[in-house]
Amino acid sequence: MKILFILSGGLDSTTALYLLRQKHEVVETVTFDYGQRHVKEIKSAQTISKLLKIPHTIINIKNLNQFLQGSSLTSKNIKTPHGHYQKSNMKKTIVPNRNAIMINIAAGYAISKKIHGLGVGVHAGDHYIYPDCRPEFIDSQAKTLSLANECDFKIFTPFINQNKAAIVKKGLALGVPFELTWTCYEGGKKPCNKCGSCTERLEAFKINKLTDPLSTN
Amino acid sequence: MKILFILSGGLDSTTALYLLRQKHEVVETVTFDYGQRHVKEIKSAQTISKLLKIPHTIINIKNLNQFLQGSSLTSKNIKTPHGHYQKSNMKKTIVPNRNAIMINIAAGYAISKKIHGLGVGVHAGDHYIYPDCRPEFIDSQAKTLSLANECDFKIFTPFINQNKAAIVKKGLALGVPFELTWTCYEGGKKPCNKCGSCTERLEAFKINKLTDPLSTN
Repeated sequence: MKILFILSGGLDSTTALYLLRQKHEVVETVTFDYGQRHVKEIKSAQTISKLLKIPHTIINIKNLNQFLQGSSLTSKNIKTPHGHYQKSNMKKTIVPNRNAIMINIAAGYAISKKIHGLGVGVHAGDHYIYPDCRPEFIDSQAKTLSLANECDFKIFTPFINQNKAAIVKKGLALGVPFELTWTCYEGGKKPCNKCGSCTERLEAFKINKLTDPLSTN
Repeated sequence: MKILFILSGGLDSTTALYLLRQKHEVVETVTFDYGQRHVKEIKSAQTISKLLKIPHTIINIKNLNQFLQGSSLTSKNIKTPHGHYQKSNMKKTIVPNRNAIMINIAAGYAISKKIHGLGVGVHAGDHYIYPDCRPEFIDSQAKTLSLANECDFKIFTPFINQNKAAIVKKGLALGVPFELTWTCYEGGKKPCNKCGSCTERLEAFKINKLTDPLSTN
């Protein structure tokens, strides 16, 4: 079926895109500019979409940032926490209801184009910290969108029960250009290799007995 | 409990606000500027909030307008349909997923302030045209928000099963200043008395054997 894909430009969503386009017609990719510190991922999303010849749209919701306070991802006053995702200090990276807001806006955009499917790159590693990345949320959200728009709206999350190591493995098989993806939550030119996102990414490559191409750049 | 109230500035949401504040602590009102033709309702929301001494915030989502196409409320190229709401031409006023998007943004804002309740002025007259004003949507949306944010999130919709005539009756008893509310979907200085919103409002006053104070101005 025709789907719209929410592409962050990270490793997970890029691999999910490569996977979903095998079975579905990905009509367009969208990336949200929500005032994230790691704006570099938007550039990655652009590059990857261009490579796949899929039209790419940036939806600017930076204006909402002032209303969704308290996250290190969007507040300059809160430091990006270091270490592993399975730690409570990672809760600092939560932007209240962020995924739900992005999914709802993307769904509205999709529906206005008569597209009733959305692809999202959430994965199992997100569950501990982010409740709006869990299967029960995604199921409930798809049902709510169907009710809100009188249609059978689908949300495809091929990695919702897979960890990052499994995603790297799948990405390898699919020929995903990992060197074009961006994962680090800090705003630097190179990955910091310390934030939760970097820690998890490096670990995933290590498990696959590979070196992250970004760490060698 | 503490709630955030989505106040459009119309008759329904204003009356719902007056009703809910009897039982709950309405901490703040929010109005969405979504590029609606009838921007006058935002001014009404401001005036009413000031009157009730409740802080009022405008959330500008005009930027999203370009992504949510096809409605007469936001597109200059589509005429506002005239007549009664129970007619299919009113479907032109649908903005895809609009209510869901506004509820999700308002919920994120509320949660960032540790408020886990939202008040919304949807009513039974909206059901025929707008699926995102129906009880089954609101119930599903509250459940989804609870899952997305690990909390017991409530959405209060006191008029979801009431028609506009019943709301006018209730508003009279509550002392709602109807002359300060704005309902017309057109952008004029006075109500057009022809659009679906006006038709329904005039009818509601007539059923209550009253004259709409706006129609005498």
